[in-house]
Amino acid sequence: MYYRGKRVRDVTKHPFLSLAAEHAAQLYRIQRDPNFKPSPMTEVDGRMVSTFYRLCKSPADMLTRSRLIEETTRAGSGVFNIVQAIGSDAIMALMIVSKALDQRAPGKGYFQRVVKFHQHVASNDLALAVAQTDVKGDRMLRPSEQKDKDLYLRIVDANDKGIVVRGAKAHTTQAIVADEVVALPTRAMTEADRDYAVAFSIPTNTRGLKLIARPLMEAESAKTPEEGLMARKNIEVESLTIYDDVFVPMDRVFLMREWESAGILANLFGLYHRFTALSYRQVIAETLLGAAKMMAEQNGTESASHIREKLAHLIMYREQSRMAIRLAALDAVKDELTGIYYPNSLWANIGKLQSNTQYMGSVQNMIDIAGGLISTMPSPEDYAREDIGPLMRKYLAGNARMSPEERMHLFRLIRELIGPMGGLLAPGMIHAEGSIAASLIALSREYDFGSSKALVTKIIKDGTADSPRRGHPVRH
Amino acid sequence: MYYRGKRVRDVTKHPFLSLAAEHAAQLYRIQRDPNFKPSPMTEVDGRMVSTFYRLCKSPADMLTRSRLIEETTRAGSGVFNIVQAIGSDAIMALMIVSKALDQRAPGKGYFQRVVKFHQHVASNDLALAVAQTDVKGDRMLRPSEQKDKDLYLRIVDANDKGIVVRGAKAHTTQAIVADEVVALPTRAMTEADRDYAVAFSIPTNTRGLKLIARPLMEAESAKTPEEGLMARKNIEVESLTIYDDVFVPMDRVFLMREWESAGILANLFGLYHRFTALSYRQVIAETLLGAAKMMAEQNGTESASHIREKLAHLIMYREQSRMAIRLAALDAVKDELTGIYYPNSLWANIGKLQSNTQYMGSVQNMIDIAGGLISTMPSPEDYAREDIGPLMRKYLAGNARMSPEERMHLFRLIRELIGPMGGLLAPGMIHAEGSIAASLIALSREYDFGSSKALVTKIIKDGTADSPRRGHPVRH
Amino acid sequence: MYYRGKRVRDVTKHPFLSLAAEHAAQLYRIQRDPNFKPSPMTEVDGRMVSTFYRLCKSPADMLTRSRLIEETTRAGSGVFNIVQAIGSDAIMALMIVSKALDQRAPGKGYFQRVVKFHQHVASNDLALAVAQTDVKGDRMLRPSEQKDKDLYLRIVDANDKGIVVRGAKAHTTQAIVADEVVALPTRAMTEADRDYAVAFSIPTNTRGLKLIARPLMEAESAKTPEEGLMARKNIEVESLTIYDDVFVPMDRVFLMREWESAGILANLFGLYHRFTALSYRQVIAETLLGAAKMMAEQNGTESASHIREKLAHLIMYREQSRMAIRLAALDAVKDELTGIYYPNSLWANIGKLQSNTQYMGSVQNMIDIAGGLISTMPSPEDYAREDIGPLMRKYLAGNARMSPEERMHLFRLIRELIGPMGGLLAPGMIHAEGSIAASLIALSREYDFGSSKALVTKIIKDGTADSPRRGHPVRH
Amino acid sequence: MYYRGKRVRDVTKHPFLSLAAEHAAQLYRIQRDPNFKPSPMTEVDGRMVSTFYRLCKSPADMLTRSRLIEETTRAGSGVFNIVQAIGSDAIMALMIVSKALDQRAPGKGYFQRVVKFHQHVASNDLALAVAQTDVKGDRMLRPSEQKDKDLYLRIVDANDKGIVVRGAKAHTTQAIVADEVVALPTRAMTEADRDYAVAFSIPTNTRGLKLIARPLMEAESAKTPEEGLMARKNIEVESLTIYDDVFVPMDRVFLMREWESAGILANLFGLYHRFTALSYRQVIAETLLGAAKMMAEQNGTESASHIREKLAHLIMYREQSRMAIRLAALDAVKDELTGIYYPNSLWANIGKLQSNTQYMGSVQNMIDIAGGLISTMPSPEDYAREDIGPLMRKYLAGNARMSPEERMHLFRLIRELIGPMGGLLAPGMIHAEGSIAASLIALSREYDFGSSKALVTKIIKDGTADSPRRGHPVRH
Repeated sequence: MYYRGKRVRDVTKHPFLSLAAEHAAQLYRIQRDPNFKPSPMTEVDGRMVSTFYRLCKSPADMLTRSRLIEETTRAGSGVFNIVQAIGSDAIMALMIVSKALDQRAPGKGYFQRVVKFHQHVASNDLALAVAQTDVKGDRMLRPSEQKDKDLYLRIVDANDKGIVVRGAKAHTTQAIVADEVVALPTRAMTEADRDYAVAFSIPTNTRGLKLIARPLMEAESAKTPEEGLMARKNIEVESLTIYDDVFVPMDRVFLMREWESAGILANLFGLYHRFTALSYRQVIAETLLGAAKMMAEQNGTESASHIREKLAHLIMYREQSRMAIRLAALDAVKDELTGIYYPNSLWANIGKLQSNTQYMGSVQNMIDIAGGLISTMPSPEDYAREDIGPLMRKYLAGNARMSPEERMHLFRLIRELIGPMGGLLAPGMIHAEGSIAASLIALSREYDFGSSKALVTKIIKDGTADSPRRGHPVRH
Repeated sequence: MYYRGKRVRDVTKHPFLSLAAEHAAQLYRIQRDPNFKPSPMTEVDGRMVSTFYRLCKSPADMLTRSRLIEETTRAGSGVFNIVQAIGSDAIMALMIVSKALDQRAPGKGYFQRVVKFHQHVASNDLALAVAQTDVKGDRMLRPSEQKDKDLYLRIVDANDKGIVVRGAKAHTTQAIVADEVVALPTRAMTEADRDYAVAFSIPTNTRGLKLIARPLMEAESAKTPEEGLMARKNIEVESLTIYDDVFVPMDRVFLMREWESAGILANLFGLYHRFTALSYRQVIAETLLGAAKMMAEQNGTESASHIREKLAHLIMYREQSRMAIRLAALDAVKDELTGIYYPNSLWANIGKLQSNTQYMGSVQNMIDIAGGLISTMPSPEDYAREDIGPLMRKYLAGNARMSPEERMHLFRLIRELIGPMGGLLAPGMIHAEGSIAASLIALSREYDFGSSKALVTKIIKDGTADSPRRGHPVRH
Repeated sequence: MYYRGKRVRDVTKHPFLSLAAEHAAQLYRIQRDPNFKPSPMTEVDGRMVSTFYRLCKSPADMLTRSRLIEETTRAGSGVFNIVQAIGSDAIMALMIVSKALDQRAPGKGYFQRVVKFHQHVASNDLALAVAQTDVKGDRMLRPSEQKDKDLYLRIVDANDKGIVVRGAKAHTTQAIVADEVVALPTRAMTEADRDYAVAFSIPTNTRGLKLIARPLMEAESAKTPEEGLMARKNIEVESLTIYDDVFVPMDRVFLMREWESAGILANLFGLYHRFTALSYRQVIAETLLGAAKMMAEQNGTESASHIREKLAHLIMYREQSRMAIRLAALDAVKDELTGIYYPNSLWANIGKLQSNTQYMGSVQNMIDIAGGLISTMPSPEDYAREDIGPLMRKYLAGNARMSPEERMHLFRLIRELIGPMGGLLAPGMIHAEGSIAASLIALSREYDFGSSKALVTKIIKDGTADSPRRGHPVRH
Repeated sequence: MYYRGKRVRDVTKHPFLSLAAEHAAQLYRIQRDPNFKPSPMTEVDGRMVSTFYRLCKSPADMLTRSRLIEETTRAGSGVFNIVQAIGSDAIMALMIVSKALDQRAPGKGYFQRVVKFHQHVASNDLALAVAQTDVKGDRMLRPSEQKDKDLYLRIVDANDKGIVVRGAKAHTTQAIVADEVVALPTRAMTEADRDYAVAFSIPTNTRGLKLIARPLMEAESAKTPEEGLMARKNIEVESLTIYDDVFVPMDRVFLMREWESAGILANLFGLYHRFTALSYRQVIAETLLGAAKMMAEQNGTESASHIREKLAHLIMYREQSRMAIRLAALDAVKDELTGIYYPNSLWANIGKLQSNTQYMGSVQNMIDIAGGLISTMPSPEDYAREDIGPLMRKYLAGNARMSPEERMHLFRLIRELIGPMGGLLAPGMIHAEGSIAASLIALSREYDFGSSKALVTKIIKDGTADSPRRGHPVRH
């Protein structure tokens, strides 16, 4: 584990990584809060387990899961708490895919290994990370076509006891504070890529596994509490996850050279995780909306029609995510082999695309409403001085509903959202869970055009029913 | 009843108005179709009545209602069939408002008159039109402030037997083929406007009621069946509806100078009708989508990434309406006094705004996919000639899945959608059921910002909890 | 020549094609107007010729040319008058390309043939059409790869006297009223496509040339003058132009199997024509803007902030075209071999893309400002009746600056723009002169990224100048 | 002068403010560079003065001025160097307004005082700041209507020797390193606001003038040179500028209670400064474009059509600013009294609006092209370790044209642009030089609709010339 060029032995004692650990720990504190809604613990087979690790067996379960992600994100001041959500996304996808695999080619025991892993995770209430996105090298080439064969994670050796893997995964969130890291394939594979069709889980302290943390610049840069309203309290850390010839024991191998299943697994995990993401993304949308509304009140502009229009667009940005969540859960699909439900793909994809494509426009609306003081306001320390503090409070006062200092905090929150946090939020909101172009193409490819084409065919047929012209020959 | 400067005695014999009559008649033919889904007739208190006239007593009723509008629109080749949908929108709004009115000020008998009207309409399975939008004059002035006092419909005389009304309403759809026309106020009124707070219903052949039809240019302009694929088959007609001192008997007066209720009634009817509109609008969206998809197939461009992206946007345009419909029905609100449900306002408004603001962009996507032949293709008559017909079929062939003539019909359908029908569709999709600006402002004004503001307040509070700076004085 | 399935012998006597002829004739009437600015006739070598046929020898010539297109379009009530503009676009492109061709491979005499053609055209003040867009068949295949080899125009026979060509071109504007039709290649060719690398001009009455006119629905559909304010006065007609084994004498052959020059010629003509198109497109933009502004005045909404914002977007839509025109002329590039200037490609392309992509949004703004009466207003004939005419004028009056009837004409003009003319305008504004996707890709491909990349390289170099970390080895 | 709660005596020795001083000093180093183009020094009346302080006497002068801003911004790694540009914007606006004022009411000597100030500034080659935006309090109230009368800068005392002013201005750029600060009114004033109609200049060390710097978080947060590629090299600092009863000697008072001139001065300075801003904004656009292009090359995606489309939009974003600059200079308007030119208002406003409204979308395009590593890449320090450094270079390599470390620098530059610098850039690009809503309304209000309305009037007149219906009476 590395941070800014130094090995880190204990993240809980590191000045910045401890923030990420503390954030993850909040999930466990919430589990002990009897008033938290929805309930973070659920009885399954007579035992209380984390609600995240309850398999979704109905649309209602999906909705509860979404609300739990929403409320834990809200408890985390708008920062998602990933450590059980993403792991359970992976476990449900693995269960469905491994069951189907075993059905088609019995005797390989994939499903049982996933079930055992799930029991281990649930009964120990573990924190999990998921490593999916390979570093990819030349993006126009498939894994096995790359000059350096290691640019996608692959099996370099295998025997009865287990496999040895090599490669690197980018953007692994919270691996540094997780108990285990689950690795999943990032895309569909061909037979030539079979060594790259691999899924497994290992503890984060496994030999050969190297986690290189991104610098937590959003927390480091806050000289005062007021400048890191979010980041000094709640933060997650991504790492570059390097598998430097790591041994994985066989009972943790969930996919091994089954290349036909790699794409199915990648997509199904993606679908679960897109639903998870919508659930926290709407809280980010809510943060922008709340900040913009309070800023409009403070500036005394909330009744101006152009401000109302911008607020309406921010409302729509938030509520479109909520629409997609509701319907993706209500129309969740049951996997017949396992009885596990997965989110409706159409609604999840539409929700994702709306969230990706309209984030920057929503930030623009918030900035437009707030005004230029976002970037030019003085430091918190200046308020404490006897000479200029009173002058600042005189001149920077807004609406009486808030003190001048609270108003400055509101500016600072927006500053944080578009500055230190912006460097994280903008790429995340645009890219996380797959690029916009890929999602648009997928939406168009998977869509059922049946009723649309039937309607057009009917209109043409009815409209030309009484035409005198029909069936003329074509000249060749 | 007037059309192009001539009085029309029998619309069913008029070469163009008969199309609108025929379109309305389709609804009655559907009522006799036992296979039509959802069922157009419903048993209420032991009698079969039109499903439109069954009051919505649950979210499921709202969904059924929406599906009936959708399917009758699809049966009408993408053209809405309004004659019972809008009337029932009005009746449900009138029931809720009149009941509340009677509750507050008993003894005026409004609710009973509405109930009686509903029974009359349902048992006779009538076709209704609704006249709401006043001609308005100077839009910056209230009704009573206008120079000409008649620019909003008003009561000019009243006695025990009834009232006399004067004024004009614009864009009354299908009044010309309806049994009765219901008049509703178009906006909130002040006490000074009390004579304008009026709602009632009268038969279309009432003395003093003048209906001046718009010219059905989209049907008139089709020289051949192929050029009026939609309009020569299915069409609705709007009229300017002039009340030239019309007497309304008291049992048909549903609102009389109750100015506090005018805005509530206008809005509640608007809400019902917005839900109705979403239900037919999605079929228009589906027409664009189907035409674009089939065109891409014909041009052989359907796998090009920019074409897929445009199709994805057309998919989103359609599906966003469906999302709003589903949720507006599922979250429908029960009026406690009457037990009648009305659509959820947030979802209905968001759906409406998406439908309004993205229609022209969706048309652009369809045109972009289709290509320039939309406007430059030869006439249907040319195909029948022996000399050039075969050449045309040779040169204008597309993908083998369709004959060259069917391909031309596809171009012609798009041509009709953006040409003759475009003059009707574009203003309708942008304006009908209220302007974009008004809807954006309403959305922002009615929204509950509670959780957004609570979240921002929490972030600021938590983030500044350990700040050394607090409570400095303001210099005045 | 065919129209609606009938051969047309004399277009000037045809009820609708005569409108297109009359429109073209307006250009010649303007030539005789001594007050027309800029001057439609110019002295060249002691003789007066049409300003269109003066070769552009300076940026000032390009600007004059643009202004002449603008003013003749304005004289044509917003309808472009193409018959000399497009021909001169072709002649200038042909001169530059043929000169370069002769330079590389002397002795073929291309340039001289073009010069001779130009003299013929200019001294006889001819009207020309240009046929460029082939019908294309399967768009994923090159010309020689098509199943039917005739789907791009090609040379099927050749000898010393001339060539025989076969194929069809779509969307040829005003060929039906032109003296000659120039054919140009539509795209770059490979050696395998050499028979498709062909350019020439022939009179419109040449044997084997078949022109099938599109139906002029926008004019046919106007039952009254008021419903065809534009189309009954000014209109152009496109045809499908079929070359059914047409012989072209050698002195009119401007490109013959010179496949390397086909793409250059296609692009250079496209560049000239894009500049021409910007010059008339801005007048269409001006029509939308003027109609929207006058409508806002009539509705009394012109001071509402959301109306002002929409007007501002309409202003920008018009003025962006003017910006591109000005700069494309000012930065026009001199072809050194001929001394002829061609428009600056960067500015012309940006102008084109703005015009393509924002047209539908501009129409939306106009509709939004105007209101729903666009589509629901009564017929002109109704105004003449003694019974309802006065009522209509009472109720449909707007601002006193205009009579009720003039106000209705304004609505009708907008109705025409988005209805009958909309079927022509929208595809034209989106597609004419090449698709949006193709233009975006071309813009990106041709752009000089030099200074942008140099700037980024400099920032990185300066920023890392004092970094202690440099030149670490890569592990392979 | 205050920074983070401490008084700063010498900015050149302050660890962060020295960066802003150093940045300003770069302008003076450039003045001594004989190869810098365009020349930063110009001969005026036999003496060499800064080209910024040469008054614009022609469109060519305006273009040179723009190019100088562009090139000094490019020299500053994309960060504008304001200290002479903004001052000369103010001086030219003051000259024109004061001359007109003296013309209308001779004897007050305003113009002479401005001329003398200009000579002082030019001959001493001073650095200037301009304080314009008042803190404003309740934005729905005029200056004199505010509860606290000091929320706009005002004259609280005056005698023959000078005036005493009180108030505060927000966002004063580089006042902290300037020799003098010019104060200008922020808006039009009524007679009741006459004490607020005040313009003057004073040295930054004047008693009572308090400059409270914003914290330079973008520089503070860079732990390594690689993380502050821009901000650790080039930065400007804004301050809250408080006039705590400051005395201004009369020869530096340029506007004193001349309330009719306040708005003219505010707008004219705004116009000059908008032109200045376009000149540096295009360099920011160029930075986004260059970073996106190089990123696409590194990711191997530059030939993907959706990437090309996004690059095309980034090209348009940059080039639209250049279009506006060119035309605003070419169509610059001569003030007849002084002979000084000011930029064309239409083009400057359109350029400003394009730059404001499309910045966030351009950032989105850059992020979309670059990918998620922007936010998740490891620290620069990690590259130096012997254990993980080689692995990082192996796995994070891109295209061979760049080393893995240079590729990471490219990601870091984008990270800086959207993170630390983003908090400054986004509000600046959206808000600086006036809000979007205000600019849209101004554009619509100032526009000459003459030719648009004439065109529409002509179309209607011509189109109805042969109508049989005219002049029917209106019923009242």
